[in-house]
Amino acid sequence: MEIVVNLKAYPCDPVEVATAAREVSEETGASIAIAPQSAHLQRVAETGVETWAQHVSPVEHGSHTGSTLAEATAEAGATGTLINHSERRLKLADIDAAVEAAERAGLETCVCANNPDQIGAVAALGPDAVAVEPPELIGTGTPVSKADPDIVTDAVAAAEDVDDSVPVYCGAGISTGEDLTSARELGAEGVLLASGVAKADDPKEALENLVAPL
Amino acid sequence: MEIVVNLKAYPCDPVEVATAAREVSEETGASIAIAPQSAHLQRVAETGVETWAQHVSPVEHGSHTGSTLAEATAEAGATGTLINHSERRLKLADIDAAVEAAERAGLETCVCANNPDQIGAVAALGPDAVAVEPPELIGTGTPVSKADPDIVTDAVAAAEDVDDSVPVYCGAGISTGEDLTSARELGAEGVLLASGVAKADDPKEALENLVAPL
Amino acid sequence: MEIVVNLKAYPCDPVEVATAAREVSEETGASIAIAPQSAHLQRVAETGVETWAQHVSPVEHGSHTGSTLAEATAEAGATGTLINHSERRLKLADIDAAVEAAERAGLETCVCANNPDQIGAVAALGPDAVAVEPPELIGTGTPVSKADPDIVTDAVAAAEDVDDSVPVYCGAGISTGEDLTSARELGAEGVLLASGVAKADDPKEALENLVAPL
Amino acid sequence: MEIVVNLKAYPCDPVEVATAAREVSEETGASIAIAPQSAHLQRVAETGVETWAQHVSPVEHGSHTGSTLAEATAEAGATGTLINHSERRLKLADIDAAVEAAERAGLETCVCANNPDQIGAVAALGPDAVAVEPPELIGTGTPVSKADPDIVTDAVAAAEDVDDSVPVYCGAGISTGEDLTSARELGAEGVLLASGVAKADDPKEALENLVAPL
Repeated sequence: MEIVVNLKAYPCDPVEVATAAREVSEETGASIAIAPQSAHLQRVAETGVETWAQHVSPVEHGSHTGSTLAEATAEAGATGTLINHSERRLKLADIDAAVEAAERAGLETCVCANNPDQIGAVAALGPDAVAVEPPELIGTGTPVSKADPDIVTDAVAAAEDVDDSVPVYCGAGISTGEDLTSARELGAEGVLLASGVAKADDPKEALENLVAPL
Repeated sequence: MEIVVNLKAYPCDPVEVATAAREVSEETGASIAIAPQSAHLQRVAETGVETWAQHVSPVEHGSHTGSTLAEATAEAGATGTLINHSERRLKLADIDAAVEAAERAGLETCVCANNPDQIGAVAALGPDAVAVEPPELIGTGTPVSKADPDIVTDAVAAAEDVDDSVPVYCGAGISTGEDLTSARELGAEGVLLASGVAKADDPKEALENLVAPL
Repeated sequence: MEIVVNLKAYPCDPVEVATAAREVSEETGASIAIAPQSAHLQRVAETGVETWAQHVSPVEHGSHTGSTLAEATAEAGATGTLINHSERRLKLADIDAAVEAAERAGLETCVCANNPDQIGAVAALGPDAVAVEPPELIGTGTPVSKADPDIVTDAVAAAEDVDDSVPVYCGAGISTGEDLTSARELGAEGVLLASGVAKADDPKEALENLVAPL
Repeated sequence: MEIVVNLKAYPCDPVEVATAAREVSEETGASIAIAPQSAHLQRVAETGVETWAQHVSPVEHGSHTGSTLAEATAEAGATGTLINHSERRLKLADIDAAVEAAERAGLETCVCANNPDQIGAVAALGPDAVAVEPPELIGTGTPVSKADPDIVTDAVAAAEDVDDSVPVYCGAGISTGEDLTSARELGAEGVLLASGVAKADDPKEALENLVAPL
């Protein structure tokens, strides 16, 4: 299982969470990436943890003030990126161009979508992974795998229909090892999580509990 | 072949073009829809021509000032709508919701996209038709079927991969009967056109020439 | 006092509300405009009521699929338009261009904003009127003139600072004659309202009650 | 004169330009800030140069994936930020919220706008500075101070009308010391420039030429 911890714009210490994630990865062999704010990429990557961006812009080098250039993201140490998170939705043509921009810069891509139909849609754009996250469950603490397990199995089926090699992650409300296990049983090959770790009093303990069943 | 004439925001007389289209439809049996500005839908529909919207908003009834409500569009006489035209690109989740809104209001849907990958993506959302329009050819007078025929055949293949029942239209640069014929030979079941008719000195003559080979 | 009734995307009968507004205008001399969906402009204007658009696009004639062209809006019978309603926020440069587009088409303009600072900002763009609407009060039934009267007086002061000839309207939560009176006492020269009329069982009665104190 | 060098998404070495700027600042006393990609803020700030962001999001700490959080920007070493650059235009309400976010994080703000009317508008939002940049001149090498000097003087007048303490910068096409001098003579208290330095073969030489007349 791939684990991506999205720090969003939370008031956490990104280096503390990154260090915890690196240690838990080393101790358990779990694959954990941290996705901080762009401005924190450099310091997060310097901890040695796998580092992801939360977003990259659908642009190439040029006159794009205020963009999040994939190449700059990679130079700061990122090796992957989320695209089209429900808190940063993109136009379809821009998802396509952002996937291309990320690939050009050597970043792995995980394109998010709300429901199984949209998972089919983004799978057609050739990303490395897709992630289904029902927006109404984000931040609730109720995992998608429990609240609406059919969304995960339908998303896996929808992705398979379009491109049977693209892994499906799931997100929204995931925080415990049990959530991870049930996501895996529903066919997910990874999870996105955020507040469960980023807002934990002890991020390392939260990550250890998360990966315990692996 | 389905023909959709998109009047965009051109300074043409929408009733004149609509009347010409209705007459050519009646005389030749060709299927021609006119897509005017929202504010012109009522008068265009009153000519008896098949009337389409250029866009509908991804919303239901409610507090949505300045939206283009699918139900209002249908009440004014539209029976179909374009969605995600390259001049009115939508977020992926909004394309999904706009298709749903249009279906709820009884409107046929044709979702546009730039290239074959994106055609696969929009086909996954269950529209009635999809349309490939390379933005760089729009308004050029050079038809996509001549400038880049592979885009059309690849789009047809991409749509078929995802949903083999969804017809593919093509657009950009189409204005003559020859363009229509070559689009059909490449597998397209319809065409979108705009300036070739909307800006013609004699829209009726332009439409007659267009449908002559059918 | 100018009264603009914004029908948003509510499931009301726009012609019924328009007819009621025209009758109440005629009977009382009150100035009441109805702002329906674009697709309903034609039928609303045909009732003889003063008709406004809810939005116009910041464009001129041209290749703008899915736009709301000011000229088309005027041709359908509108004589004014809201711009930058909090449910249809625009980029600053687009507010500027939309005001220009509306003026070119002979439409009166009322540019909305959330708070006094933003009222100062939009007053600098030269509209015919500005309207302050705190988004948190929209649709609540609690009038801005009661919930936060300082917003209205501060907005009037902010507009005056920048251009002392531009009238300030207020909106959000307004539904009764008492609300209208207190808006006027705070310095507003008009009101925007929506659900109070559009969702009323008897729109004519709602409008009569509204204008009674005038 | 304040000088802000916007590196946009140009393929330059941000540390090289930053080092050159710091050296020229030290040697000449000129005030030069470098605005790199977010992901480069940390390394640019570590050179000791004054560091600015190209954009900050109109958000507070919270669930805002893919945002550019003002606090993270400041933690990486930025002390100021551009807002509403013509390549990253914001909704009016978002300019207001971004100025507030930047102030909360202790960042200086310079809000950009296209023309004198819009300069008046953004001055009403209380930023530390405003910058007029006619988009059609960006990247042309023809300085606004030569192509259209009235834009600068009118912008200075428009800002003064609204808030006579807010300094006006100007940008677009500026690259030489002569451009800087004429901007100053027209009333500008700072300049934004980009390609003239970022794309120079020798950024240090370009900066030295720029500040020579100061």
